[in-house]
Amino acid sequence: MSILNRYLDALSTPAVCLDLDVTRANIARFQLYADKVGVTVRPHIKTHKLPPIAEIQLAAGAIGITCQKVSEAEAMVDGSAAITDVLITYNILGADKLARLAALAGRVTLSVVADNAVVVGGLSETFANRPKPLSVLVECNTGADRCGVGSTSEAVVLARTIASAPGLVFGGLMTYPAPGGTARVQAFMAEAKALLEAEGLAVPVVTSGGSPSMFEVGLSPVVTEYRPGTYVYNDRSLVDRGVCGWEDCALSVLTTVVSVPTSNRAIIDAGSKVLTTDTFGTVGHGHVLGRPDITVDQLSEEHGRLVSDGPIGLSVGDRIRVVPDHVCVVTNMVDVVQVFEGGAFLGPWSVAARGRVV
Amino acid sequence: MSILNRYLDALSTPAVCLDLDVTRANIARFQLYADKVGVTVRPHIKTHKLPPIAEIQLAAGAIGITCQKVSEAEAMVDGSAAITDVLITYNILGADKLARLAALAGRVTLSVVADNAVVVGGLSETFANRPKPLSVLVECNTGADRCGVGSTSEAVVLARTIASAPGLVFGGLMTYPAPGGTARVQAFMAEAKALLEAEGLAVPVVTSGGSPSMFEVGLSPVVTEYRPGTYVYNDRSLVDRGVCGWEDCALSVLTTVVSVPTSNRAIIDAGSKVLTTDTFGTVGHGHVLGRPDITVDQLSEEHGRLVSDGPIGLSVGDRIRVVPDHVCVVTNMVDVVQVFEGGAFLGPWSVAARGRVV
Repeated sequence: MSILNRYLDALSTPAVCLDLDVTRANIARFQLYADKVGVTVRPHIKTHKLPPIAEIQLAAGAIGITCQKVSEAEAMVDGSAAITDVLITYNILGADKLARLAALAGRVTLSVVADNAVVVGGLSETFANRPKPLSVLVECNTGADRCGVGSTSEAVVLARTIASAPGLVFGGLMTYPAPGGTARVQAFMAEAKALLEAEGLAVPVVTSGGSPSMFEVGLSPVVTEYRPGTYVYNDRSLVDRGVCGWEDCALSVLTTVVSVPTSNRAIIDAGSKVLTTDTFGTVGHGHVLGRPDITVDQLSEEHGRLVSDGPIGLSVGDRIRVVPDHVCVVTNMVDVVQVFEGGAFLGPWSVAARGRVV
Repeated sequence: MSILNRYLDALSTPAVCLDLDVTRANIARFQLYADKVGVTVRPHIKTHKLPPIAEIQLAAGAIGITCQKVSEAEAMVDGSAAITDVLITYNILGADKLARLAALAGRVTLSVVADNAVVVGGLSETFANRPKPLSVLVECNTGADRCGVGSTSEAVVLARTIASAPGLVFGGLMTYPAPGGTARVQAFMAEAKALLEAEGLAVPVVTSGGSPSMFEVGLSPVVTEYRPGTYVYNDRSLVDRGVCGWEDCALSVLTTVVSVPTSNRAIIDAGSKVLTTDTFGTVGHGHVLGRPDITVDQLSEEHGRLVSDGPIGLSVGDRIRVVPDHVCVVTNMVDVVQVFEGGAFLGPWSVAARGRVV
């Protein structure tokens, strides 16, 4: 463990702490697996929002990065010259965003997704007179019931629309699967790909994502590219699902016990403004490292409530570390993360793409 | 309604929009009630985090402001010369925060709370050699089971400790009540006050808070000061509790429909990174203005999912406004809010105290 107490004691709490050694190991582990099963890796940077972490992912073998919004992509590209290939997995609409997208396309290899003809129309209008066409993938709903065309025949219709739209090229198929949706991804994407190829439309990329099922992508041979996000840090939701252990969790929230009102209740200075109320399907709000007997049963903005069946054994002023339920949303709550590597404290890193929602 | 569509059409979404006319009316309504029942108002700025809104509250009659963390208080005091009296309702611990607290005490009339002797010890050590003593109130648990001494006898012991500690003066009693806890606040505080006065310890302030029960403070005659937060904007949780109507909600999230995958499902570009997953006890994630038939049933970071029993009647590109479940946490998610007043767009206001957690 490269996070040492002598450094932790000096930080004001709550502090989001990042273990870079564990981060590097997490990145290497999935890259090794992906190389073995022949899938390229395009990490989703929403989890870290940090250009230097993207650089580690690219150096390990990632072919590019995934962003969710145009402003997020801008922050990442601004932050690192190593980022030269970006996929934005979002339906982009509106004059302001399309203009920013066009500007970004002049700086990096850019691709986006669409699940409807209105979005394709806006993209085409923007890119029709640009020197380089924009690659647009069709987003497919393989069971998550969020965005995405609902059938393979709709995928074909939209792919045709893209292929014939001025300024655009059809880039392939994209999905964000439902939990446990590996088989459904394979069935949908294989059928859609066959239909498209039968029409003479090549499908250069079939991209899927999600850290919970990342080590199952070998079971979906149609998938050519994977977009894991959470894997870079891991969190309680992934430990609960058996994807990793606590020792693989690179990010934790350092927090101080500010009150011990009863023998089995303690209050910490990390609330929903750091840990967030996003439980990602788990019960409670994070895992207190070294204290599996404690439940964080309630959060208000600046208070976390810890309870235990027996005596809680904490004193006012004690410092503990909490692994969040869902790590991606925690990164978005803070201006800086405190970074540790090889037993040294590297200092605070500014979360470059925090709060980028447009 | 002072938010006009011609301005809304020009904003990139998601955008947090603030109606200043409704805000002023909300502030005036509670101040009028408080004046009538003889309670002073010390608004909790966590809801807006904006010095200019605090100035409106002070101009309307508030005696000072409440903050939850030292860094939050610093941002507010930095942002307005009109803010001269600050109560921080938090157990403050740690050398860095105590030093910052001492610096702040040189700039404004400052008071804090404590619920244990360790916190009192740190405050005393910091203020023992300062020109002006620090006022410290005893935080009491009147049923919320978060922080606070659990009995009136403990309150007396801690008040004595404060009164005899170098550099400190006993400032009174503070509580954040449980929902529906008005009667319990009165019972606890009246008993504690009587015990303290019997010992010759004056109780200059008894302060309570919480917007849900704000119009019941007249039923707790022992309370001298009230700290409402959410009342300044209101939200879906307060509409659900019957405290206000939709027309009293000053803050809404402007968002664009980016996908309509089925006849009864639509996806908006506001997810948990703006609306947050904090439901504050309500079902669903916000209220779509003018469309009570729609439920926001799921949020991921950048997507909100809207469902309806019948046809949803929305098209890609449509813009709607969503009143969040819990407005305080939404303010913390964005760098700016877009402000409207009297039919005019005032522009973006920087959320000065956003992300101040230490």
